[in-house]
Amino acid sequence: MPTGPLRCLTPGQLVPFGGDRVAVVGDDLAAAFVEGDRLVVVQETGDLLHIPRAEHERVHVAVGAALEAFHALAGVTDDQLSQFFCGFADRLADDQVFAPIAAANDGDVASATARGRSTTRLVLSPKMRADMIAGLRVWQHTDGRRDVQVGRVDHAGWSVETRRAPLGVVGFVFEGRPNVFADATGVLRTGNTVVFRIGSDALGTARAIMTHAVEPALRAAGVPVGAVQLVDAAAHAAGWALFADARLGLAVARGSGHAVAQLGAVARQHGVPASLHGTGGAWAVVHPDADAGDLARIVRHSLDRKVCNTLNVCCVVRAGADRLVPVVLEAGRSAAAERGATLVVHATPSSAPFAGPDAIPQAVDDLGTEWEWERDPELSLVVVDDVDEAVALFNRHSPRFVATLIGGDAAAQQRFYDTVDAPFVGNGFTRWVDGQFAFDQPELGLSNWQSGRLFARGGVLSGDSVHTVRTRAHVTDHDLHR
Amino acid sequence: MPTGPLRCLTPGQLVPFGGDRVAVVGDDLAAAFVEGDRLVVVQETGDLLHIPRAEHERVHVAVGAALEAFHALAGVTDDQLSQFFCGFADRLADDQVFAPIAAANDGDVASATARGRSTTRLVLSPKMRADMIAGLRVWQHTDGRRDVQVGRVDHAGWSVETRRAPLGVVGFVFEGRPNVFADATGVLRTGNTVVFRIGSDALGTARAIMTHAVEPALRAAGVPVGAVQLVDAAAHAAGWALFADARLGLAVARGSGHAVAQLGAVARQHGVPASLHGTGGAWAVVHPDADAGDLARIVRHSLDRKVCNTLNVCCVVRAGADRLVPVVLEAGRSAAAERGATLVVHATPSSAPFAGPDAIPQAVDDLGTEWEWERDPELSLVVVDDVDEAVALFNRHSPRFVATLIGGDAAAQQRFYDTVDAPFVGNGFTRWVDGQFAFDQPELGLSNWQSGRLFARGGVLSGDSVHTVRTRAHVTDHDLHR
Repeated sequence: MPTGPLRCLTPGQLVPFGGDRVAVVGDDLAAAFVEGDRLVVVQETGDLLHIPRAEHERVHVAVGAALEAFHALAGVTDDQLSQFFCGFADRLADDQVFAPIAAANDGDVASATARGRSTTRLVLSPKMRADMIAGLRVWQHTDGRRDVQVGRVDHAGWSVETRRAPLGVVGFVFEGRPNVFADATGVLRTGNTVVFRIGSDALGTARAIMTHAVEPALRAAGVPVGAVQLVDAAAHAAGWALFADARLGLAVARGSGHAVAQLGAVARQHGVPASLHGTGGAWAVVHPDADAGDLARIVRHSLDRKVCNTLNVCCVVRAGADRLVPVVLEAGRSAAAERGATLVVHATPSSAPFAGPDAIPQAVDDLGTEWEWERDPELSLVVVDDVDEAVALFNRHSPRFVATLIGGDAAAQQRFYDTVDAPFVGNGFTRWVDGQFAFDQPELGLSNWQSGRLFARGGVLSGDSVHTVRTRAHVTDHDLHR
Repeated sequence: MPTGPLRCLTPGQLVPFGGDRVAVVGDDLAAAFVEGDRLVVVQETGDLLHIPRAEHERVHVAVGAALEAFHALAGVTDDQLSQFFCGFADRLADDQVFAPIAAANDGDVASATARGRSTTRLVLSPKMRADMIAGLRVWQHTDGRRDVQVGRVDHAGWSVETRRAPLGVVGFVFEGRPNVFADATGVLRTGNTVVFRIGSDALGTARAIMTHAVEPALRAAGVPVGAVQLVDAAAHAAGWALFADARLGLAVARGSGHAVAQLGAVARQHGVPASLHGTGGAWAVVHPDADAGDLARIVRHSLDRKVCNTLNVCCVVRAGADRLVPVVLEAGRSAAAERGATLVVHATPSSAPFAGPDAIPQAVDDLGTEWEWERDPELSLVVVDDVDEAVALFNRHSPRFVATLIGGDAAAQQRFYDTVDAPFVGNGFTRWVDGQFAFDQPELGLSNWQSGRLFARGGVLSGDSVHTVRTRAHVTDHDLHR
């Protein structure tokens, strides 16, 4: 197959993607693209992502340096890694070191304010500073388990063991807030290195943290400075370039929405495993025998604020609907009232007779919608014939994330677990799905099964999860043969 | 971004791939491609793979059926799965059932012979038949561990556990030999379903096995018939279509060479985890303190026949070269003599003074070459300054598969393990790298690190490995909140 360099794109050029589709090159892209730039054709959508040469090269160099540092890290002790986390935390805690970081943050905040951007999560407040330091102290005292045995088989004359081992370079794309450093650098604890991009709003702060805290702490501990790489680029293209680098061992994107989904697609089509939130929203199924008091508590504690594991769809089995739908609605109103807000109910046709006159009609086919509320809690309500129908709706419409069955005996709970296609299944409130809360470990990422089940791993990505497995043979009898 | 259907390809059309390259549509492809067909642009190479509509649809339907069967399998007991393996084995053992299978195999063999194709591994001999039956009996009696706990954390008022769970649909592409059914169906043991393509030489035999043994055994056990799908298509395009189906949980390709590498690239760029052999060839590093007798035994047992884990490159540390290179050469000659063959030595410049006049010169940059010998064992010989130099050569040139250090104390062995970038590391012969031999479990696939370290798993893929992890919460105190 003859091939050559991609020298230019022409307006109207047809670019095949996704097997049987074409994307059309627009005038702007054709005008902007020059030889040496890169084009990523997103196979899921036909998006044509233009990566200017400068962004590509910056990322290429950063990943190369991180890969080199990764191999060098094999010669760095766990104590040195602890020293790094300690030194990084100490520097953030030192007012003199922190002064230029605070100044850089003031600059970022002023710039964001001038551009009319939200600064809620951009201000490096005393609390955020303390949280960052605390996060680094956790890593300082965590056992990274860089090289521990996970299995062993003994044979006559030899034995074989499987051992955890570091994975490689982890690429992160963060939103524009400064407190991502504990997460980004946490992967060093398990022997990995990191390249990360941060939203442009927080780039000045990030630069200052790198210069005044991260790099000096790495040097002081004797850890290769290449082990932590900030991609110093404001353009989104830097994130695409990062996730398109097949040398990454893992790509993690924070946040949600189209940009994150697009990054996930870029990573996947470059063969890079990706951890990203995807669509959120938990489903609860209410068994007819559910205890009204438990149900009320569960709904209230699952609607306290809007995050990815907040209750989004509630299916009530018809036999219990008269008794239990009012409990759900009252608990939802109570959760809303606690925040001085009003409950918004979306009712499918089956639940309309139970949901009251204020409910907003919703089609069953729209049950995949995640209600992205800020103040007023929103909830879809469905009345189903039985738990199996609720499971079928979940498996068809949900983002395959969190499912909970409220009530039901052990057999009903087991059948629910066996049939619902969710990585996270419970019998109570939905907000337990969080790595820190559930496993007492810092959470680096959380995945649903929207793009399928995750091979060989669970949906929670903790520092501990960023590993591969090696196999080591110890032969004592060298007459061993096949 | 405007998009539309891919209606046609035109000769000379430029198809962007790999970020900064274009492939050129040739006359043949343009002439053959019609609307409804699919085009896979291999991003690593620019190969333009044409999948006719019929092949795509056949595979699409098969994967859909396997996915439906996967969900139905949640309601099938372990006993039923055992019954399936037992029934399949019984049918193969029954001469009356086997008669039409044998007849179909005779047809395949006659056809291959007429086309001048090798029939060495195509003949369904009594031994192959017995091995297939034995393989199925292993699965029959294996505990699939479909749903077992792997971790648990207790909290006040609730607990959370992680559990193994089935992964989904596994796609296999096999070479053209009939004895792949035990591997293909083995994934059912762990609750997965399978779609497989078999090389066209063995397709008649495979069809007969499906009709007379697999499908009746599935029905008799009450296992959904969709759980085992043979892609009944002779064209390579069926394999591309299979690995391009993002609904697969895992893609496994057997064999080696360009076709397998291409299949791996197709799977990876569709976000499907792939297990494939890649380039083989083991490396041994000989420490200056190595025992001559052990070294001789290790080399002989590592050169007994050519498979993926056969010794390919031997690095001898200079301080021991005078004493130990002759041992390596003599052991290699001895291994060759055992098969009535002659040792072929490829010598890099550093080893030429030690390797004798018959050695064939080899450039260091060519050390990645896998010697695909059949009769005469072939071996690259390198003399290095120290073990670190050998490790650096391995990390730069090898396919990152098997590395062994012969001799050296525990500290030297540990340093070797820490620095060599290989999934399989040993201190003796290289041929131990085999799932069945090392872990007493049927091996479905074996991976090197040519495309990077494997996230969260080792290089041996056994039936046991084909799983995901689910997280289940048991709440007892429904006042639990965040």
